[in-house]
Parts: sequence; C-alpha cells; structure tokens
Amino acid sequence: MIEPTEPFMLMDPVQLTMDLIEAQYTLKDTCDKNNAKSLVVLVSGIELAGKGEAVKQLREWVDPRYLHVKADAPNLFKPRETYWQPYARFIPAEGQIQIMFGNWYSDLLETASHVSQSIDETIFDTYVERMRAFEQDLKNNNCDVIKVWFDLSWKSLQKRLDSIDPSEPRWQELHALDWRSKKQYDVLQKLRQRFTDDWLIIDCEDEAIRDQQFAQYILQALKHLPKHKTSIRSKWQQASVPDVLATPATQAMDKAEYKAELKKLTKKVGLALSNDPRNIVIAFEGMDAAGKGGAIKRIVKQLDPRQYEIYTIGVPEKYELRRPYLWRFWTKLNSSGEITIFDRTWYGRVLVERIEGYAHPIQWKRAYDEINRFERELCDNQTVLIKFWLAISKEEQALRFQSRQQTPHKRFKITKDDWRNRNRWDEYLSAAADMLERTNTDYAPWHVIATDDKYTARIEMLHAILKQLKAV
Amino acid sequence: MIEPTEPFMLMDPVQLTMDLIEAQYTLKDTCDKNNAKSLVVLVSGIELAGKGEAVKQLREWVDPRYLHVKADAPNLFKPRETYWQPYARFIPAEGQIQIMFGNWYSDLLETASHVSQSIDETIFDTYVERMRAFEQDLKNNNCDVIKVWFDLSWKSLQKRLDSIDPSEPRWQELHALDWRSKKQYDVLQKLRQRFTDDWLIIDCEDEAIRDQQFAQYILQALKHLPKHKTSIRSKWQQASVPDVLATPATQAMDKAEYKAELKKLTKKVGLALSNDPRNIVIAFEGMDAAGKGGAIKRIVKQLDPRQYEIYTIGVPEKYELRRPYLWRFWTKLNSSGEITIFDRTWYGRVLVERIEGYAHPIQWKRAYDEINRFERELCDNQTVLIKFWLAISKEEQALRFQSRQQTPHKRFKITKDDWRNRNRWDEYLSAAADMLERTNTDYAPWHVIATDDKYTARIEMLHAILKQLKAV
Repeated sequence: MIEPTEPFMLMDPVQLTMDLIEAQYTLKDTCDKNNAKSLVVLVSGIELAGKGEAVKQLREWVDPRYLHVKADAPNLFKPRETYWQPYARFIPAEGQIQIMFGNWYSDLLETASHVSQSIDETIFDTYVERMRAFEQDLKNNNCDVIKVWFDLSWKSLQKRLDSIDPSEPRWQELHALDWRSKKQYDVLQKLRQRFTDDWLIIDCEDEAIRDQQFAQYILQALKHLPKHKTSIRSKWQQASVPDVLATPATQAMDKAEYKAELKKLTKKVGLALSNDPRNIVIAFEGMDAAGKGGAIKRIVKQLDPRQYEIYTIGVPEKYELRRPYLWRFWTKLNSSGEITIFDRTWYGRVLVERIEGYAHPIQWKRAYDEINRFERELCDNQTVLIKFWLAISKEEQALRFQSRQQTPHKRFKITKDDWRNRNRWDEYLSAAADMLERTNTDYAPWHVIATDDKYTARIEMLHAILKQLKAV
Repeated sequence: MIEPTEPFMLMDPVQLTMDLIEAQYTLKDTCDKNNAKSLVVLVSGIELAGKGEAVKQLREWVDPRYLHVKADAPNLFKPRETYWQPYARFIPAEGQIQIMFGNWYSDLLETASHVSQSIDETIFDTYVERMRAFEQDLKNNNCDVIKVWFDLSWKSLQKRLDSIDPSEPRWQELHALDWRSKKQYDVLQKLRQRFTDDWLIIDCEDEAIRDQQFAQYILQALKHLPKHKTSIRSKWQQASVPDVLATPATQAMDKAEYKAELKKLTKKVGLALSNDPRNIVIAFEGMDAAGKGGAIKRIVKQLDPRQYEIYTIGVPEKYELRRPYLWRFWTKLNSSGEITIFDRTWYGRVLVERIEGYAHPIQWKRAYDEINRFERELCDNQTVLIKFWLAISKEEQALRFQSRQQTPHKRFKITKDDWRNRNRWDEYLSAAADMLERTNTDYAPWHVIATDDKYTARIEMLHAILKQLKAV
C-alpha cells in the first residue's frame, strides 16, 4: 500500500492549482513526443467516503477540459467479455488524463460480492494478478495507471449515513450494497485488501486532507514522465525459418475435386460458425497476395451478412498511434458471440512494425508476451481465436502480382507497399518464424497454410477452422 | 418510386461481379480525393421478402472486406434522441459502403405502427421530410444515400410463412409485427408508400431477379461519382459587423461584488443544470483568449464530475475529415439528459474553415442551413442548446496574450495558431457577423458576451444560461 508521506503536508491551494495546471499542460505537450504518456486514474472506495467530491475538487483545481471522467456504476462480469473490454475505449490518448470511477476492480468487487455463486479466493487473486499484468502492459505502452482507494471507517460511514437526507437522489445509488451491514462492510474491506497493495489509500475522515492527498498524488504522477525507447542492447535468439515457410507445397488440386469439396466445406463451416455461441475471431496474416481476401470470401460464403464483421487493418491513424498498439483491436472486438475477421492483425507489431522500424526493438521484443496475454484473456472468456499464416513462395507471389496488374478489377490490389515488402522477403520470413515460435499457444495455436496452390490453401484453411471449433 | 428499367435484364454473374469489384475499388480509391464519396444503402421491406439473402448474395459478388453491414432490428424512437443519432456512428468514411438494415425509416415505421399513441399522418410526413433533408445534407457532404424497399405481395408472404419451419430460429424475428394479419399488412403498405417515392422497389417474387436488381442498383450508385467543389460564383451578402463585436464594453466589475455574485450564480446554475431532465449542450465560440476556459470552469464548478463532459475541438483527424463535417459532433452528443460542453464547435465550418480556406465557399455558404437543421433536430428532441460568442477587443487580446506568456502555467495556452488568427482579426469579425445573423434561431439563439472585463463576462454568461433554461 502506498502511504502518503507522514506527516502529510497541506499545500497552499493557489500553489497546488498552479502546479497542477503546469503539470497538466506539460503532459499535454508530450503528445507525439518521445516522453509521451497518458494517465489513467482508477478510483474506488467505501460509499460516502467522498470519491466524487475529491474528483470535483480536483477538476476545479486543474483545467477541466483536459481531465476526462468516466462515470458508470460497477458492472458484473459478463460472459464472453474480458474485464478490460468495457473500459478499453476510455483508454486516453497521449497527453490526456482519464479518471475511471467504474473500473475493472470495482467490477471484480461487484462480481465477487453479489453473485449467488461467489468467486473463490484463488480465482479472485488470479484476476488481480492478471489485472496487474494488464496495467503493466498499459504502462509499457505509454499509458500510466494509478489507483486510489477512498477509505472510511465503519463508525464514520454510519455517521454519514445517519446524516443523509433520505429524499436526496444520491441515496438511491447506495443500494447496491447494504452499507448498514457490518458484515458486508467487513467482507468488502477484506476483499479489497487482496488488491490494494499498490494503491494509494486515503483515509477520508477529513475532507480537506482527502482532497489534497488525492490532488497531490495526481500531481506526482503527472510530473513523473517516462523516457521511452531507451536503447538497451539485448540478445535476440532468432528462430530458424521452418522449411514449410521457405518452400511451400506446390502440388495443385484438381479443379472439380476442389469445387465439390469447397461446396461441402463452406456449408459445414457456415453452420459451425453460426451455431457456435462463443465469440469467434479469425485472424489472417501472411505474405502479400497469399490469398487472404479469397480465404475470407469462402469463410463468409454461407453466413448471413449480419452475423460477421470484417476489419482490414492498415496503417494506424494518429489517434490510434497515441494509444497502446493493441487498443485499436481491443475496441473492435465484440462480446455478443459474433464473428470477427481480421485481414491483418495485431501481429503487425512484430512483422511490418519490426521490419520497417516503426517499433523500437524493445517494443517489438516485448510484444510477443503482451500479445500472448491479450489472446489468453480472450480465450479464457469464451472466445475462439483462429490464427492463420498464409505462406506462398516468392516465385508464386511474382506470378500473382503480374496477374493482378493485368486484370482490371484486380490491379487496385497492388500498391507500392507490396513491392517494398517483396524486397524484404527474407526479413518477413524471419519475423514470421519468430512470431510462430513465440505465439503458438495452446489456447490460440497458429495454422500455417503453406502452398502455392490456391485451391489447396482454401480447403486446408476451412478444415482448420472446423478442427479448431470442435477442439474445445 | 424508382422503377428498374423494363424489361429488366439479368447480367452475366461473372461480368456483374467483375464490374462490382472494379466499381468498389474505384470508389475506395476516391478516398481523400476531389471526387470522394461514401455510400449508405438503406434496406427495408416486407418480412421474408429476402433482404438478408439479397445482401448476402451481393456480399458474395463484391469484395466483402469493403462492404460493411449494420444489423440491428428497428427501434422505437426514444425521447431526447434524434432519429439519426443511433446511426451516426455508422456513417461510412469516404471510399466505404455501409448497408443499414436497421435505419431511420424502419424506426419510423416501428414507432408509427407499434406505439399505443400512434403518430398521426402530419407528424409522419414531417419526419419523412426531415429525413430527406438530412439525407440531402449527407449527399452534399460526400456521403451518397440510396434506399431499397424489398416488397412482397400479401399472397406470397402468406405462402412463405406457411413454408417456414416454426422451429427455425428466424421465426422469432417475425414477431414484431403480425404478418398473418391482412389489416396490419395493409397499414404497413399504406404507411411505407408515404416515403418510398425515391426508393427502388424490388418485387421479391423471383429470387434471382431480386438479387440482380439489388446488385445492379448498387453498381449504378457506385459508378456515379460526384464532382465536388465546382467553382460557382454566387453572390454573398456579407452581414455588417455589429458595434458590440467591434467595440466590446470595458466597464470593470468590482471584485467583491463579482465574488459574491459568482458564488450565488454558480450554485444556481449548478442546480438548474442538474435538475433539468433534458440534454443540455453548451457551445462556446469566440476570439482566442476571450475566456472560454474560464467560463467553462465556472459552469461546472458546482457540478458532479460524472454529470458532464467537455470536448475541446481542434483540427479534425483524418478519419473525421473523411466524413461529413458534422459527424464528429453527431457522435459526441448524448441522449441521456447529461450536460455536454463544447470548447469550440461545429461553427468552425463557417469560421476557421472559411477563413483559412479549408472549406470551399460552396461548402461554408451551405453550412449555415445545414447547421440550423442540425440544431433544430436537437432542440425538437428535448435538447437545450446554449450558444455563446465571447467577444473582446483586439487590445485586450494583446494584453491577455502577453500575460499568458509571462505566466508559467499559462504559457502553454498560447500557440502559433493564436498569432495567426490575430492577424486575421477583421476576417474573424466578419465571419462572426455572418454566423450570428444566419444562425440566430428561436430554438437556438446566440448569446453574445462582449466585454473586456472577465468578471462581467462570466456573470453575464451564467445569467444567460439561467435565462435560457427557464425560457422553454
């Protein structure tokens, strides 16, 4: 637990407001720069301790235009949804501050104390561990996280409850928990102590001290600016390129056989996807012209167009670059059991961003673990994640580029980027080899489809989907 | 009603798919260019006519990655929400195609036929008229809209209902309307004829013809690319600059009097804003350093930080530029009775964009009416829109710029843009004069606060809020 320095010193409010505003503008100014950061402030605590009042006072001391406040009440965890999903879209851009009243810990507390089948301690602690890992990933990606617990003793809570006018509208907000029950209060206090080691705990007996402790802690956090991308030389054990990537199969499938098989399989895949109640994410990576578009077409052939969404991932926009690189994927995932297809994915971090130098070695080397954690969270929450690497030979790519350029309705598919990537063929193979080795997990295995024959590729791909859907 | 050419000709499917893909990529390629457009396809019709199937077939013929489908069932109109609000975030970026199964017309039909107090014909027709104006505004801003009604005769509908297996899950979707009731069918047909003049009506008796009519209509729409910003010289009646803008008041308020008055007023304003069940939008425009930030601080002083959101509007991002200029405001408005404050607004179109030439004269001249329509829709749906223009003298601005540069925590507030804008002082005054004259409406009047004295400005501003909240 982070203890405020003792004895705690009140600052002159005029000085405090000036320092806060200066720190806030300094933070704002880091946007797009090397020391960029954003700040998330998680706020939880005992009812009536005065979270709302402290934030109100803070917002009065700072420039309120650059301090965002998210206000939802806590929610129960939902099936098919990770704990961070409801909050992902509130992750602030560099230079911004976001206060979250409702947050993953308040949802955890809500779920642990309200559901008839309550969570046991091991599961609770696993959640806490994962949340901390998630926060560390945020921090590593320029989004600092601080956590503040507004505490109040049982006695003071009862006194404040006594003094509330029951006609006040806020009274209604207190009903989620019975704050008159000492037993419930004690359970809550015991639970929260399982995760508040790295929180600032504010004793809210005295309002002036409460507001200042909170504001000074924010000030401290604002002033602490990171130095990113420090050049540390670390060894890198490059995976060797598997033969199958270097020399894809060439045997061609008979067209008639393909057509019959395809018809059967698209129907089967369509049914399997439609009837599966889980979220389904299908992720495509591979060399340019390896057949991602064609593969996607066959997957969706038998699907109702309202069941699925396809995202084609290109260069990130500025507002996306100002957030953790996974953010633009977090916000595209759904939790209602639909089908989401990605034509290129978060693996861009360890492919194009690595190769073109958009990500620093420290960043892309760290990304394998970050991605594994991200995928594990999804898969642990009823998501089937089916990942494809489509491999073709360099010669086959040349043939397909030529054919595209000669076909009017396909020439749009060839861009300058494609030629540039082609010149870096071997680097892409190496990056793919590393990726396959480091992110091929039980919960989200890679399917490598390596063949110069389009027909074979599509049939293998459809088989792989069926297999993985049935596997679990 | 748009009749398909008679006799309707089926195209060779291979040719159709090639034409569609080529047209689709051509559209995609217009993004960021002078002939840019996006396409919205509204799809409605009789149950079982085969909307879903036709879209599915279309998505098979095109590249499905660039054809987005929005799938919601129709909703009843909600209080405090305009008919376009639920759909605003689906307005596609230039180069993209968005199919909307659920859309403002399906909501209108749902509301008109399901609510116990049904809408009368005049109101229904007013909605249709406004929807058309909204669509025209979309079209003028590079977002084309086409509408397709999938029709089915009573006899065929009954036959299809007979043949459905009642255990099929889709059967449940039919329950919104009783499709076995001839009376309800007739009412629906009569209602829809009040708005389908400019729709393509497809008779869905024959599935092959249905799918082709739909796809060919899309092809036609894709091929029709606009030429934007054609230079037409039109006369412009420049409003004269009101004295109050040119020479703001200078009388200073006594500090003690200000403090007392401010305390009273912020409390009153806080209460009035909190207790008002309507959506409240407060919009600030004005010269740089006119005191927008300070004014906002005083408005929110007595508010719970969870009740309001402040948006500071700057240069639009690329993804915003690819949509109608009002889009980034549509998507920021809420419909739950909260308070939304804009530090700079959609009036940027007729201020900075006009002056800096980011908007073509045709565009900004058209914008006054577009903005008036936009604001009227809001105000007709339980939104109070309070608009402020803060005016100071050029001399006062110079003083404030200097003081900001000398104060550490304020020097961040001065940017290059501020100096550039200052050099165009008179142009801004003229643009403001035009804006005030053309967008000062009954439903959303302007409050001009013109004084070099900060205290007076804040007090006047708070009075204006109270007055407008009570006015309606």
